[in-house]
Amino acid sequence: MAKNLMKHGYPLVIYDVFPDACKEFREAGEQVVSSPADVAEKADRIITMLPTSMNAIEAYSGANGILKKVKKGSLLIDSSTIDPSVSKELAKEVEKMGAVFMDAPVSGGVGAARSGNLTFMVGGVEEEFAAAKELLGCMGSNVVYCGAVGTGQAAKICNNMLLAISMIGTAEAMNLGIRLGLDPKLLAKILNMSSGRCWSSDTYNPVPGVMDGVPSANNYQGGFGTTLMAKDLGLAQDSATNTKSPILLGSQAHQIYRMMCAKGYSKKDFSSVFQFLREEETF
Amino acid sequence: MAKNLMKHGYPLVIYDVFPDACKEFREAGEQVVSSPADVAEKADRIITMLPTSMNAIEAYSGANGILKKVKKGSLLIDSSTIDPSVSKELAKEVEKMGAVFMDAPVSGGVGAARSGNLTFMVGGVEEEFAAAKELLGCMGSNVVYCGAVGTGQAAKICNNMLLAISMIGTAEAMNLGIRLGLDPKLLAKILNMSSGRCWSSDTYNPVPGVMDGVPSANNYQGGFGTTLMAKDLGLAQDSATNTKSPILLGSQAHQIYRMMCAKGYSKKDFSSVFQFLREEETF
Amino acid sequence: MAKNLMKHGYPLVIYDVFPDACKEFREAGEQVVSSPADVAEKADRIITMLPTSMNAIEAYSGANGILKKVKKGSLLIDSSTIDPSVSKELAKEVEKMGAVFMDAPVSGGVGAARSGNLTFMVGGVEEEFAAAKELLGCMGSNVVYCGAVGTGQAAKICNNMLLAISMIGTAEAMNLGIRLGLDPKLLAKILNMSSGRCWSSDTYNPVPGVMDGVPSANNYQGGFGTTLMAKDLGLAQDSATNTKSPILLGSQAHQIYRMMCAKGYSKKDFSSVFQFLREEETF
Amino acid sequence: MAKNLMKHGYPLVIYDVFPDACKEFREAGEQVVSSPADVAEKADRIITMLPTSMNAIEAYSGANGILKKVKKGSLLIDSSTIDPSVSKELAKEVEKMGAVFMDAPVSGGVGAARSGNLTFMVGGVEEEFAAAKELLGCMGSNVVYCGAVGTGQAAKICNNMLLAISMIGTAEAMNLGIRLGLDPKLLAKILNMSSGRCWSSDTYNPVPGVMDGVPSANNYQGGFGTTLMAKDLGLAQDSATNTKSPILLGSQAHQIYRMMCAKGYSKKDFSSVFQFLREEETF
Repeated sequence: MAKNLMKHGYPLVIYDVFPDACKEFREAGEQVVSSPADVAEKADRIITMLPTSMNAIEAYSGANGILKKVKKGSLLIDSSTIDPSVSKELAKEVEKMGAVFMDAPVSGGVGAARSGNLTFMVGGVEEEFAAAKELLGCMGSNVVYCGAVGTGQAAKICNNMLLAISMIGTAEAMNLGIRLGLDPKLLAKILNMSSGRCWSSDTYNPVPGVMDGVPSANNYQGGFGTTLMAKDLGLAQDSATNTKSPILLGSQAHQIYRMMCAKGYSKKDFSSVFQFLREEETF
Repeated sequence: MAKNLMKHGYPLVIYDVFPDACKEFREAGEQVVSSPADVAEKADRIITMLPTSMNAIEAYSGANGILKKVKKGSLLIDSSTIDPSVSKELAKEVEKMGAVFMDAPVSGGVGAARSGNLTFMVGGVEEEFAAAKELLGCMGSNVVYCGAVGTGQAAKICNNMLLAISMIGTAEAMNLGIRLGLDPKLLAKILNMSSGRCWSSDTYNPVPGVMDGVPSANNYQGGFGTTLMAKDLGLAQDSATNTKSPILLGSQAHQIYRMMCAKGYSKKDFSSVFQFLREEETF
Repeated sequence: MAKNLMKHGYPLVIYDVFPDACKEFREAGEQVVSSPADVAEKADRIITMLPTSMNAIEAYSGANGILKKVKKGSLLIDSSTIDPSVSKELAKEVEKMGAVFMDAPVSGGVGAARSGNLTFMVGGVEEEFAAAKELLGCMGSNVVYCGAVGTGQAAKICNNMLLAISMIGTAEAMNLGIRLGLDPKLLAKILNMSSGRCWSSDTYNPVPGVMDGVPSANNYQGGFGTTLMAKDLGLAQDSATNTKSPILLGSQAHQIYRMMCAKGYSKKDFSSVFQFLREEETF
Repeated sequence: MAKNLMKHGYPLVIYDVFPDACKEFREAGEQVVSSPADVAEKADRIITMLPTSMNAIEAYSGANGILKKVKKGSLLIDSSTIDPSVSKELAKEVEKMGAVFMDAPVSGGVGAARSGNLTFMVGGVEEEFAAAKELLGCMGSNVVYCGAVGTGQAAKICNNMLLAISMIGTAEAMNLGIRLGLDPKLLAKILNMSSGRCWSSDTYNPVPGVMDGVPSANNYQGGFGTTLMAKDLGLAQDSATNTKSPILLGSQAHQIYRMMCAKGYSKKDFSSVFQFLREEETF
C-alpha cells in the first residue's frame, strides 16, 4: 500500500512497530520515524493500518499516539478492520483536536494490495470524502462512500459475515450432494445456474477439483486465513450484540471458524471449511 | 405443465385426486381417468407430480397405483420433490415390472411452469435421458442430467438448502448493516460487488425498497412459500441424517423456517425471513 | 438381559444374527434357533433388541421375521431404540396377526443391564402393561408406563436429546469458566448449588479432575459412546421433522455429535465433547 | 439490599441516579448524597449495583465518579453483573488509588434480595474476602469466593449460560414429547429420574400445569425476565469471543433470547421459551 503511494509521487513519513518493515522505505529515501506521534508532527494526511481495535486505540490515544501531536485540519484515515463503535470513539477524540477521522477498511487481500486493486469502504463526513479518495485511489480501484463514521467498518463486517455464511453453506451443500452421489463439478454447475449461486460457489469454490486458481486447488494455501475470518466474525458478533440484532447463522458461522482455528485450520484459507466438514468417520 | 405438453401435440391421460383440477382438460377433449393405475393402463410415458414422499409412494405402490397396471418398457418420470431414498425405492419396484423410473424434480415456480421455462434436474439411467428430455423439454427450458436415480432430488435439495442459508444470511447481514447506520440500497450494492454477493442479495433481495419486482417489494406475496422451503429443508435434513453428513447451518436454517411457519409466515415468500428478524424490540 | 431372565427361571428361545453370541446360552441348555420366525413359532412372549429401525423392520416383517409365524395372543416387546413412527407401524402389523406389540426402550448402559438395574420406558395398550412389567422387571429396576405405542421411544428420545444439550452446555460453560480463570472443581461446585445444575454437571461431569468414577476420569473410556448419542439425536431430529417441532438446540447438538464422530471421537464417551471443545489453538 | 445492611446496624451513605429511590432512606435518617464521588468522600466501604458495564465505568471513572474522591484503603465491592474484563479494568484503576476492588455479582432475584437470601459470587484478593463477606453476609445467605478479580462475574455468566441452554433444551424436549403423545407431567417425571434431569426440569419446569409456584403456572409473570437473560448471554458471548472459547449452544441460546425480546416476550420470565416454541402452525 505504501509503495503504491510512493509510485504516485507522495513523500512518506513512516512508522511501524516492527522496524524491519520500514527498512526498504528508509533505503528508498523516505522518512522513518519512531512513533505515531512523530508521524503526526510531520504529516497532515495519515493512514493507519492495524490488526486489532486495541492496537488502533494505542496508535491514536496511546502515550506516543497520533493525538499527542496531531495538527489542526489533518485528515486521519484508519484502514484497520475494527469494531465500528471504536471507530466512532476515535472520531470523537480526533474531532476534539480539530482534525478529521475517516474509517476505510479494505478488502481484496495481499495480491490486490500489491497491484493497487483494493476496495475501500469509507465512513466519515461526506465533504472530506474527495480528499480521502485522492489518496485511497492510489491503492485501490474501488473507493466506496458508505456514510457516517463507522459505516465503512459496518459494510466490511456485514459483507464478511455473509461471505462466511455462504461459504459454509456452499461447503455443506457440496458435501451433502457428493455423499448423495452427485459429481462435484456437475453439482457446482447446477448451483451456479440456480438460486443457490453465490460468490463462494461460482468464484471461489471450496471443493478441490472443481475450479482452478483458487485455494481449494492448492491445498487451501494462500487466500483469506481462517483466523482472520474468525476475527471478523467476532467483530460482527460484537456489533450484533451491541445493536441487539439477531444473527442466528452469523453466530454459528463464528463458532465454526473458532473451532476450526482450534483444530489445525488457523492458517488455511477459510474455504477449508469444506475439508473440515468432509473428514470421514473412521472405525 | 400439462397444458405445455398439449401445446406440443401430446395426447393426455390425466388423473388428479381433486377431480375439479381435471375439468379443463376434460372439456378440451383429453381423457380423464379415475386412478393412477388407469393412467398406467393407457399410457406408456407417465409424469407424476406429488407434494410428499408418502403421496408418491401411494401413487406408485398403492392399491390403485401405477405399478398395478404398468406396461413393460414404460417410462415413468416423477417430478415431485421427495426424499432421494424414496426415489431409489420406487425405481427398484418399477424396474421389477420391466419399466424405467427417473426422478426429475423441478425448480422455477408457477410463472416458469406456465411459460414452459422450468428447470428439471434428472436422475436415472443415462440411456433413457434423451427420451425423458423430449417430454420435459416441452415444459422446461433447462433439462439437466444429474446421474443415477435419486441425484435429481439430491441436486434440488442441495440447491434449496444453500438458497435457504444464503437468504437467511443476506437477511441477517442487511439487518445488521441497517442497524449500524447503512442505507439498505447502498449496502446491497456493496455486497453485490463484493464476496458476499449471492442470488438472494443480487436477484431476490429480501429488504423492501431495495429491488422492484420481487416479493419483498410486494409485502412478501407470491414467490416461494415459507412452508415449501421448510419442507425442502426437512428433506435435506433427512438426507443428511441418513448419510451422516454434517449440516450445521442447514439444520439451523431448517429450524428457522420451521419457527416462521408457526409464527404466521407460512404463506409468505421465504424472503420474509428479513421481516421475521427485523421485528423490533418494544417496551 | 437374557441372563437375568434365566435367573428368574424363564426358559429361553434365542436367536442372534451373530451365532457366537448364542454359544453361552446353548451350553447352558437353552434353545437356540435359526431365525426370528423360529422364535415366534416356539415362544409367545418375545423380546427384541436391535440397533436400528431397519433391523427392527427386518426382524419383524422380513422374509424370516417374527410375523411369519407369530401365534395369536403373543406379547411382543421391542426394546430397541428406534423411530417412534416405526414402532407404530410394527404395532399395526402385529395387531393384524392377533398379537400385541409394545415398545420398551431401555436406558442405563452395560453395567445396569448386567445388574438388572435398567430403566424401561414402555408404550402400548395399558391392559398389557402388567404382563410386560412381569418380564421387564427381571431386567430392570424401573419399568415406567408412558402411554400408547411409540411413547416409550418418545420418552427415551426426549430424555437423550435433553441430556445431549445439557452435556454440551456443561462442557461449554466449564470451558469458558476455566478460560476466564476459574478453578474447575470450584466452578462445578458453584453450578451444582445454582440454577445451572444438571445431571451432566453434578453426576457425570465432563471435565477431567472434577469427579471420580466417571468417564472423564478415565480418558473418556466406557460410558455412552458418541456414535450412540449421534444415533439417538438422529431419531430425535427425524421425530421433530415429522411432527414439525422446532428443536433449535437439539439440531445443533445432533450436528456437533455428528462432527465428533468424524473427528476421532466415535468410540469415546459422549462427555468427551469437553475435550472436543477444549482443544487449544496452536500457532 | 440496602435495608438489610441497615437492619444489621450499618449507617448508610446513599446515591442513586433516580432521587426517588433514595426517599425512603432519607426519611429513615440515612445520608443521601448527590454523586458517587460524594459517597467515596464519606464512606470507606462502598457497594455498587449498576445495570450495565457502561454504567459501572461511569460510576467509578466518570466526572463525578468514586475514583475522584476515594480514600486510601477503601473496600469497593461491585455487585453489578458486567463484563469480567471491565471488572478487571476497574480493579486496576482502583488499585492505583490505593484502594481495593472486588466483583460480587448476585443471583436469586427480588425475593431473595428482600429476605437477605441472595447468593454472592466474589472475585478479588483473597485476603480481603473476609471483610467483603462481613458486609455481603448481611444481604446473602451464600457468599462464595471464586478467585481473582473478575471470577465472580465469570462464575455468574457461566451459570446463567448453562441455565439458558438447559431451559431451552427442557422446553424443546417437553414440546417434542408432547407432540409425540406424551403427557407433560409424566414426561417431566421421567426426565427428572433420568439423565436429562436439570434445574429447569425439576425445579422451574417451563410447561404450564407441570408444577405449582413457578412462573409457568402464572402465565410467565415474575421470575427472571427474558431481557435480563438476553443481557447475561450477551456478556457470555463477549467473554467467549475475547477468550476464543467456542460456545456453539451458548451463542444459539443468546440469539433465541434476543429474538424472543423482539417478539413480545421481553418482560416474561425466561421459561416462556416453551410458549415461544410451542406456538402452533396455523392455516
